[in-house]
Amino acid sequence: MASADARLAGIASSIRVIPDFPKPGIMFQDITTLLLDPKAFRDTIDVFVERYKDQGITVVAGVEARGFIFGPPIALAISAKFVPLRKPKKLPGEVISEEYSLEYGTDKIEMHVGAVQANDRALVVDDLIATGGTLCAAVKLIERVGAKVVECACVIELAELKGRDKLGDRPVFVLVEADA
Amino acid sequence: MASADARLAGIASSIRVIPDFPKPGIMFQDITTLLLDPKAFRDTIDVFVERYKDQGITVVAGVEARGFIFGPPIALAISAKFVPLRKPKKLPGEVISEEYSLEYGTDKIEMHVGAVQANDRALVVDDLIATGGTLCAAVKLIERVGAKVVECACVIELAELKGRDKLGDRPVFVLVEADA
Repeated sequence: MASADARLAGIASSIRVIPDFPKPGIMFQDITTLLLDPKAFRDTIDVFVERYKDQGITVVAGVEARGFIFGPPIALAISAKFVPLRKPKKLPGEVISEEYSLEYGTDKIEMHVGAVQANDRALVVDDLIATGGTLCAAVKLIERVGAKVVECACVIELAELKGRDKLGDRPVFVLVEADA
Repeated sequence: MASADARLAGIASSIRVIPDFPKPGIMFQDITTLLLDPKAFRDTIDVFVERYKDQGITVVAGVEARGFIFGPPIALAISAKFVPLRKPKKLPGEVISEEYSLEYGTDKIEMHVGAVQANDRALVVDDLIATGGTLCAAVKLIERVGAKVVECACVIELAELKGRDKLGDRPVFVLVEADA
């Protein structure tokens, strides 16, 4: 097996940066090129699974849409439930929802009632933490039903946007730091 | 290991049906309850992997958003690339797109240029085949770059909607048949 550092370097180098998407000035971190590299994708999941396999995690919650790509392989490997946190009007059952701020206006994410229980220990997964707004809303949904958020796991962090600060004392684990 | 029939019965019984979503008269097949059952989710992925592991598949293409949940674990298990097929304006790189019909109007899905190559052998994954419109657009995107679609794989088929007919001679493999 390659060293941890070599794996992280391989993961980082598989991520493509696209300037000016979705608008001028933004350097978009594109994880689709990571997904085209089976070794980098395997290593990404393995690093998360090695970290979480013995932490008693019972739920992996993935944030729509790219959290759906990274969350399920982790959930399967540690035999946890997978819970999709979705944009409004996508989940068919009864939901609770949390609003979060965007640069202009607000958006919402929703979770099925009953998907997470008060005694669950949850891992929240997304591809990237930027300002932390979405991840913070995800954490609040899980905490509202009384469950514990053990950690938030992201592939990439735009550290200069200080998203971690919004999450208070919930730990955030990331594989790659990038510039915003 | 449970018999194949027992696994499929467990998968089928883990899927919840929600009446009148997203509108009156529709019986919505909700796979989020399957994802809450680690054994049913594991069995779902295992059945697909056993079928595809020796078919020389080099690409698994998942249709947004629920195809992102089932496609990546299959891609990881067979060491194939994973390619997300997304709704318009979500992919940051250069894309090709295919339009498909909805009950009223049309929608589009997009694929990154370069993600699939002419010599690739692709599996297209979604949670459900209904009228087959989305899946057919997905197949066209892959065939437009010269690659071969080996099969389409879905968890659920609403057989009475005859979605298979739209796909011509591309095979479709499903785990569960349900009423529309």
